[in-house]
Amino acid sequence: MDPRIEEHAQILLDWSTDVRSGDDVVIAAGAEARELIVALHRELGSRGANPTTLYTSGEATRAHLRAHDDEFTLPEHILALYEACDVAIHVRSDSNLAALNDVPGKRLAERSRVHKPIIEERLSKRWCLTQHPTNAHAQAADLPLGAYRDFVYGAILRDWDAVEEYQAELRQRLEEASTVRVVAGETDIRMSVEGMHAINSAGRHNMPSGEVFTAPVPDSVEGTVLFDKPLIHQGREMEGVRLRFEDGEVIESSAERNEEALDDLLDTDAGARRLGELGIGTNREIDRFTKNMLFDEKMGETVHLALGRAYDANVGEGREGNDSAVHVDMILDTSAGRIEFDGEVIQEGGRFVWE
Amino acid sequence: MDPRIEEHAQILLDWSTDVRSGDDVVIAAGAEARELIVALHRELGSRGANPTTLYTSGEATRAHLRAHDDEFTLPEHILALYEACDVAIHVRSDSNLAALNDVPGKRLAERSRVHKPIIEERLSKRWCLTQHPTNAHAQAADLPLGAYRDFVYGAILRDWDAVEEYQAELRQRLEEASTVRVVAGETDIRMSVEGMHAINSAGRHNMPSGEVFTAPVPDSVEGTVLFDKPLIHQGREMEGVRLRFEDGEVIESSAERNEEALDDLLDTDAGARRLGELGIGTNREIDRFTKNMLFDEKMGETVHLALGRAYDANVGEGREGNDSAVHVDMILDTSAGRIEFDGEVIQEGGRFVWE
Repeated sequence: MDPRIEEHAQILLDWSTDVRSGDDVVIAAGAEARELIVALHRELGSRGANPTTLYTSGEATRAHLRAHDDEFTLPEHILALYEACDVAIHVRSDSNLAALNDVPGKRLAERSRVHKPIIEERLSKRWCLTQHPTNAHAQAADLPLGAYRDFVYGAILRDWDAVEEYQAELRQRLEEASTVRVVAGETDIRMSVEGMHAINSAGRHNMPSGEVFTAPVPDSVEGTVLFDKPLIHQGREMEGVRLRFEDGEVIESSAERNEEALDDLLDTDAGARRLGELGIGTNREIDRFTKNMLFDEKMGETVHLALGRAYDANVGEGREGNDSAVHVDMILDTSAGRIEFDGEVIQEGGRFVWE
Repeated sequence: MDPRIEEHAQILLDWSTDVRSGDDVVIAAGAEARELIVALHRELGSRGANPTTLYTSGEATRAHLRAHDDEFTLPEHILALYEACDVAIHVRSDSNLAALNDVPGKRLAERSRVHKPIIEERLSKRWCLTQHPTNAHAQAADLPLGAYRDFVYGAILRDWDAVEEYQAELRQRLEEASTVRVVAGETDIRMSVEGMHAINSAGRHNMPSGEVFTAPVPDSVEGTVLFDKPLIHQGREMEGVRLRFEDGEVIESSAERNEEALDDLLDTDAGARRLGELGIGTNREIDRFTKNMLFDEKMGETVHLALGRAYDANVGEGREGNDSAVHVDMILDTSAGRIEFDGEVIQEGGRFVWE
């Protein structure tokens, strides 16, 4: 076995989820994550913890959903499993990223709605989302599997304690800032983050991680932004997305490719035209866009903005975050731009001023 | 997909577990059962039921158990999953039947003891144990995979309603009988089944099935039996096992191969020297021994006797069944012998007298 798989398992159990003796652990993974599943079992055994593994399969989910034309009911047994567990580890390890592409979107959305209590239960535990390298993900990244493995483990096998410390300065400044401005190429956008909480994301819930993020005050966003990385929503890929905000709302929008998909996204609900997240990526081991948001939004020298729902943890007391059924991250390159907090430059040409 | 896989899924959901809309279903299966998992998801979708699949892997279990040198604790999350489910389908689909061969037997036994409430919970639901053909099982059967598939589906894809009806006569006679005698070659063994319940096993809990079975009165077994099929216990294979019973207890034993393993088995506890089951196989599609008890004990023109624990369902009110930590089935060929109930021949040369 590639020794990096064993290291990955150790990081997940020690740093991300702090597994102790007697813990009941749910692993959700595809069959292609076989080696990581074995490594996790070994490491869980040596810690005296109890694993069970849910087999995730796009092919099986597709077969179920296409045949299911009845109303959905909540799977009480899966809810009970998560209620009774201590730790939940979800491993992305798809065999085909297009596996659900012929399932009607409405059915997917309806199932998501009915399964919401399961997701919420899972997120109330010590939980982590991670990646096992498969050919499907490698292909989406335009990489051979061996090179993709190097990319994945480069981003994951880090000293996360040091990352957390490195990001502490950024988190502190973002927490104290009232306004944020991002200038890069055609982009010039400003927003208030007054009273919102900045979070230092260093591998507890996402592995890899490497970002500091907060929620904008919904009505405060002003300016224009050009997202220079492709953007994927419900399997539809958009490019060259331009948005102009006034009083927090998108009042002009265009895309160089698949503008229709952008219009559909913006029309989801009122909150889909407003921002729910501002994140600043710091993981410089992630040096390329791989069409996988678990990695893309953590990329060093980028900023991401999400249309839609804000995370509760970002929204300060007495404040209101944006609400929506969607949360779609969009990424822009700041390596030739700058980020300002309260008029003070904190990142220029991709470097933080304190680096 | 081989259309027999879809048929197999339909039989499991319609005949074996009677799945209805809204049912919460646990499938436990290995990655090699991929196609059956997909077929079950499709059929569960069309019935409006909710599947979740537990990934079973000898390789992962081995890694966990070898690393686990602490005391075992009950995995409460797996127990909660089974408590909350309606239907449990367990699919044998191993990649390597020797996967656990270097795990200390004591550790396996200790884990089984701690996990007992999970097994009991599962057996309290609508449950079924079945088989997906894999190379590992084919190899154990001395067959190429294609021929093994034909064997498996030949045994499974049957009119189970007709099998149940066919076995009803045998069940009725065994239920009413006081004594059973089996004579075949060197074997001549007698026992009382007075007050015990005979069960017509026609594919509700085992798929394939095809047997009628009961429990002997523990102290009543007398005579000698030669088991002419190999016998496997905890991965150890014995051949030519001869047992002599007096007052229900084994008082002489020998094996042509691996007598040591037989001695270990008999020394497990007091109940391991007494019989817990008498079964009569009727499935003539199972025409060969494949070292898989799910099939072997159902073979037409055979009788099996189990050393160890009796099933509660066989033990009549006010009666006592045999108790033990083990239940080890041993098979003998009756195609050239006879079976008598209360002195009356009911099977001779492999044919029931009413056939």
